[in-house]
This record gives sequence, structure tokens and C-alpha cells, in this order.
Amino acid sequence: MPTAEILSQGDEVITGQITDTNAAWLAERLTELGFGIGQHTTVGDVLPHIERAIREAIDRAELVICTGGLGPTDDDLTARAVAQVLAAPLALDAQALAHIQALYERYGRAMPKINEKQAWLPKGCIRLDNDWGTAPGFALRTPRGLAAFLPGVPREMKAMFEARVLPLLVGELQAASSRLLTLRTTGIGESDLQERIGRFEQPNVVLSTRTRLPENHLKLRFSPQVSAERAAQIARGLAAKVGSPVFCIEGLDPIAGDLEHVVVHHLIERGQTIATAESCTGGQLAAAFTRVPGSSAVFFEGLVCYSNAAKERLAGVPAALIREHGAVSAPVARALAHGARERAKSTFALSTTGVAGPGGGTPDKPVGTVFIALSTPAGEHVRRLRLGGDRHRIQALSTGAALDLLRRHLQGVLTPP
Amino acid sequence: MPTAEILSQGDEVITGQITDTNAAWLAERLTELGFGIGQHTTVGDVLPHIERAIREAIDRAELVICTGGLGPTDDDLTARAVAQVLAAPLALDAQALAHIQALYERYGRAMPKINEKQAWLPKGCIRLDNDWGTAPGFALRTPRGLAAFLPGVPREMKAMFEARVLPLLVGELQAASSRLLTLRTTGIGESDLQERIGRFEQPNVVLSTRTRLPENHLKLRFSPQVSAERAAQIARGLAAKVGSPVFCIEGLDPIAGDLEHVVVHHLIERGQTIATAESCTGGQLAAAFTRVPGSSAVFFEGLVCYSNAAKERLAGVPAALIREHGAVSAPVARALAHGARERAKSTFALSTTGVAGPGGGTPDKPVGTVFIALSTPAGEHVRRLRLGGDRHRIQALSTGAALDLLRRHLQGVLTPP
Repeated sequence: MPTAEILSQGDEVITGQITDTNAAWLAERLTELGFGIGQHTTVGDVLPHIERAIREAIDRAELVICTGGLGPTDDDLTARAVAQVLAAPLALDAQALAHIQALYERYGRAMPKINEKQAWLPKGCIRLDNDWGTAPGFALRTPRGLAAFLPGVPREMKAMFEARVLPLLVGELQAASSRLLTLRTTGIGESDLQERIGRFEQPNVVLSTRTRLPENHLKLRFSPQVSAERAAQIARGLAAKVGSPVFCIEGLDPIAGDLEHVVVHHLIERGQTIATAESCTGGQLAAAFTRVPGSSAVFFEGLVCYSNAAKERLAGVPAALIREHGAVSAPVARALAHGARERAKSTFALSTTGVAGPGGGTPDKPVGTVFIALSTPAGEHVRRLRLGGDRHRIQALSTGAALDLLRRHLQGVLTPP
Repeated sequence: MPTAEILSQGDEVITGQITDTNAAWLAERLTELGFGIGQHTTVGDVLPHIERAIREAIDRAELVICTGGLGPTDDDLTARAVAQVLAAPLALDAQALAHIQALYERYGRAMPKINEKQAWLPKGCIRLDNDWGTAPGFALRTPRGLAAFLPGVPREMKAMFEARVLPLLVGELQAASSRLLTLRTTGIGESDLQERIGRFEQPNVVLSTRTRLPENHLKLRFSPQVSAERAAQIARGLAAKVGSPVFCIEGLDPIAGDLEHVVVHHLIERGQTIATAESCTGGQLAAAFTRVPGSSAVFFEGLVCYSNAAKERLAGVPAALIREHGAVSAPVARALAHGARERAKSTFALSTTGVAGPGGGTPDKPVGTVFIALSTPAGEHVRRLRLGGDRHRIQALSTGAALDLLRRHLQGVLTPP
């Protein structure tokens, strides 16, 4: 099994101002691809530290992926360190320069002088064009294999890894290649998930879990000798054990991805539409739908009814209902969803109303009390949530729970309140 | 400045199954305390890798904090590695054992036999009792300073760092304690920022930059001998160089924090209110306001007008205007903001309309073309944006630009279109 090492650099990572999600993403991706990960190393913007880290990683691993330090500013030192360690002096790469200038032109701006620095690359390197940002990456063959240097911006790093680095790894990859199927679940905690699964023992299959609020993922990694049919059979068997929390199996289901993606694509498939009326989630639910490319086919409008007056005027919630039950109540959640659906003339509507905190809690409705409702042509479904954590977490989990209420209705696995 | 290094270990970290939040938390905490962070290193549950990482870190740094590998199972190897590297053979620590047994009793359970392993600690170490879980930690004096070994469970690790490790650092801490002032900017790229600053050279001050879209931060770290007055003077001088993109100086300004926090608190201070009418940001702008605790005092309602019909019905945009100029146009952005302000009876309203992609671009309005507008009692301000990147980035930057348009108006630094 070929080994890989990951280097992250930058003062904002070393000082903890940023959590290094690049390293975790690369580690997971490289593991999927069949590499053994030897070490992650993170250093700040200090030339001797960067040189030491690169030198040691190249000595130990077949593949070294380094992120960060390719920017235009003085504290971006990666190219200089590589030039030193691999004895590849920097030279101005005309194509890299043209590529950066073209990018600025596309946005009607002149390239700032200092960006020219980004076109100085180690002599003899493989240039990795960056179509997602200004910093070009580069790769060099090393005694043991390959070292690739990518920008630190996660979006750019991921795109360049897939589009530029993978094609260089053909040889290394033949040694690896494993199949991955991911069960995405929501509305169930990790420990309950464990209990439903029980002991999982299958030859040539590794099960790992991952939490991405509001989702929990079960990752099944199959060694090459497991057939696609057998893998699918095992994944479906596990899904049956877990039950309704499973909303898709990535790698098997035609509609798969995160919760909002799955919901939007189920709606597209059925030619149905959704509207929203939000109080405590304050726009996050509408934002979840509209983040999905193509959502304009199913989502036309959303209401953020933060004040009681807005609940009445925008969604037609009767003032008496709010007076009688309070804005945070099942009847008001129902009325919000019903009103939003009627006014938008949509197939469905979702609503949220709750106490996100830190203030606003009462003994019978403490912070974390949230009501969500789904309005359908056949009537409304309301749920009461009791959520823990801070305002940020309560808003995020309420959004997830509302999406999941619609998801369960669309997949026909709506559970009783 | 004393240096610290952080070691993380465990297969689930090295394979990216979990993101290493411990390292980021420790790095930020140690930086606050005035340590310079030399390196983070992560290794899997492989004895020689752990030994190498510990040996190298102890050689380089005054303080080494290692997390993980203290569990009861065979793949928890930290104590064995330490015994090897620091020539401190493992011995059964009676008090550690009693402490673990007591913990189990508290939950009315007998201690499983395997947990006895956790009471075998390196000879001569300082035992760090764990009142938050079963794994005791330990620390040893090293030639350069101290090495502390803590459990990997974040909650336990953080509690033990604060309660057990800090008291051991009195000496190291006196050497440290630095002052930090952060200039938060928005609406300017890192390169342009660098050009405005030029060369920054001040004794006993370290300037570092950090990007948190849509913000760029300039962090000024002052050594103890710089007076508060002098530090403030330097920060204000730098802010003057950068100009209107600076929206607050954290550590100096009474209203400071992220962009939405600053905008909401300026509004609270003036007793003014804001409404929103969003197309391409699809709710993210309302969500930004309502994420801020206390925003209910200034934000009452928001409209997500994703379809043309919604723009007309919810915000009163004349159908003719959309027909004539298209939904993505300055006049429609203006009408959205104006309509939202009139209907919500708010002091201000913000609107967005644009092509977030991936589809929907045209030659004269390519993907990334976004119009934002601010409606005020004195009329509307409209801006056209040309944004790069994917849908996610375009929506996020549009949201930031809209917030910034209001921020600049509130701070009296609105720049001409």
C-alpha cells in the first residue's frame, strides 16, 4: 500500500484561527483511493519550518500533498521552500502568468502587480493550472514518487486535487482502488445508530461513521475483491437495519447527496413545489433549498416572519392564535405553513417557530423549544423539537429537522409525532 | 517567545474520519497564552510513528501537548511510546487506578479489567487526574520544558488542559502574554490589502492576515513591552492606510465582531430597522441578520422572491420593469429594496438579484453578475457585482456585499458606484 503524507501550512492554521479541514478532506480522499496516511504536518509561514517539513515528508512517503502558501503576499513561501529543498530554482512561467492575468480580465480588473509572484514556479515542475482562483499549483516527481503543492483555499484545493493531481497518480492508483458506498442518515444520533447496527462484521468491508450535522454518515469501504452486486447487497442490508433515518445511499441511489439536494431532486422528479415561512430559522431553510443548483424549478418564494406582525401580514396567521397560544406553538407553526402554501400556491410549505436563544426562554418553552410544520394538500404535520446547544446549533438543527419532515413525507416514511 | 508543538494521534484522525478540532483549539488557546506554535503533527496508532513524533517535538519545543492514545485498548500506545522516548518505564499508579475505579462506581458499574491498563503511567510523571472521563493524563518535565499527554475526547482534553496543565505552566506563561488587535475588513481582496499596507515594519509587532469570506482580517500581535496606547495608535494608523474597507478594530472599538454583528449593533444603537428582499441569495441575507443574538430588535421580516411572480406579488416590483430590464438588473434590484422597505415600514431594506449559476448566464449577464440595492429614507443605492467561483461562493459574496453596502452607509463611508 503506497503511503501519503499531508502538509498544511499557514499562520492561520498553525495558530488555530482556522481548523484544518483540508487535511481531513485529503486524508479521507487518499484513504478512499487506497493510500496509507503516514503523517499530517502543519507548520506556519516560516521558511526553515516549511523546508524541514517538505524534506522529511518527501523522504518518507510516495505521495506528498502540500496545501497553502501559494498566495501573492510575502508570507506565502512554499515555492521558495520547494526551490530550496528540491534544488529547483524559481523561474517566471509565462503560461502561469497569462493564466492569472486572464482570470483577472474575466472579472474586468487589472492584475495587481504583486500577483506576478504567483507565476514564479520551481524549474522543471508540472504546472497545475488553477481555474478556481489565482494561485497556480505545481507538482514535482520525487525519488519516491510525487509531491503536489496546492492552494490553501478548500474550494480551490479540492477542485485541483480532483482535476489536476489525480491524473498524475495513475501508477500509484492501480496499487489501490477500493469501492465506497455511503448511507446518509438524519434524525438519529450516533449512539442510537450504533445500537440499530449492532455488531457489523463482514470480510473485506470497513464500516466507519461520520457526523455532519444534521446528518450522520455510514461509510462502507469495500476491498477490490468484493463484487459491485455483493457490495450493494451489504449496503442495502445495513440500510434495512437502520430504517427510515437513511435518506440515500451514495454510490447506489440515482438521487443522492446532502439532505437539501435529495429533497429538491425528489420534488423536481415529481414536478412538485415548496414554499417556506420561517421564524426561528430566519431564512436558513430557504437558503438550504436555494443553495441547490436547479432549485428554482421547485422553490419560488419564502417568507421570513420574524415578528408577530410579519407572521400575520405575510403568512396570514390570525392574531388571536398568537395571543392565545404564543408565537412559539404548534397552532402557529401549522398556520404559518398553511398560510405560506396558500399564498405561494405551492404543493408543500414548511414552517419553523421556536426559541433559538440565548434569550426568550420560559419554564414551559425553554431555549431550544422549536415547532416545525409541513403543509400538504392533505393537511398539516407538526412536530415539537427539544434541542440543545447554542443559537447557531438550534437554528441549524431546526432547519435540518424541517427538511427531514418533507423528506420523510416524499419518501413515504413519515413517522407519527 | 516560548514555542509549543501539538501532537494528535489516532487512526480516525490520520484517515480523516474525524477533523482534528483538538489541534485547532489548542493552537488558538496556546497562541492566546503567548506561545509561538512551531508545528502540529498527526500520526496514526503506529508505535514507531508516535515515538518519532514525540522525540522530534520534545527536541524542538518548550511545551509539547499530545492528545489521544490514552484509551484502554491495544491500539492506544501513547504511554508505551513515552516510556520508550523518555526512558520512563511504565508502572501501575495506585491512585490513578483508584480514581478510575471510583469513576465507574459513581455510575454503579464495576471497572472492566482492560481499563487497568490506563493506570500504568511512565515512572516519575506528574499524574493528571481526569474527572471528565476514564483516561488519566500525565506530564513530564523535558530538557526544554514540559510535555503533557491528554485524552483525545475534546471535552475531556479541554477541561484537563485548563484544570491540570495550565497550573504547571506558570513559568512559561510569564515569558508570554501578548496583546492582540484585529482590523476586520471587507470589500477588498488580500492583494489590494497588501498593496495599501505596503511594507509594515514595527518593533515588537507581528502583522498577519486571515481570510474569512467575505472578510479579510489584519491581526496585530504586540509583545508585552508595547503599551496599550502605543498599540492602539499603531492599529489606528494601519486602519487609516487601508481606509473604508476596515469596519471595526477588535480590541478597541465598542462595536466589533463579524460583519453582520457590527451591522446589527449599529442599527440597535440608532434604533433603526432593516428588511430584506432576496433573489439570488435565497434567504442567506436574512439568515445572516437573524444569526446575530438580539437581531429581533432590528429585523422583523424578509422576503425571498425567487420567481418573477414572487418579486411582483411580495415586493411589488412592476411586471413591466422585469420585462423591460430582466429580473437581473439595477432597476429590479432598486424596486425590490424599495418595495421591501415600504411594505415592512423599516428604516432600510436590502435586496439582491443575480445569476448564481451554474446555469442562467448570458453574454451580457454571465454567471456571477449580481445587483444589490440598499433602500434608505433618502433613496436607493445600487451596485453591480462581477463575482467569480461557484454558486456557493457567489451567493456568499453577494450576501457579504449587501451587508457591506448597509455597513458603509451606517458608518458614513459609502463609496460611489
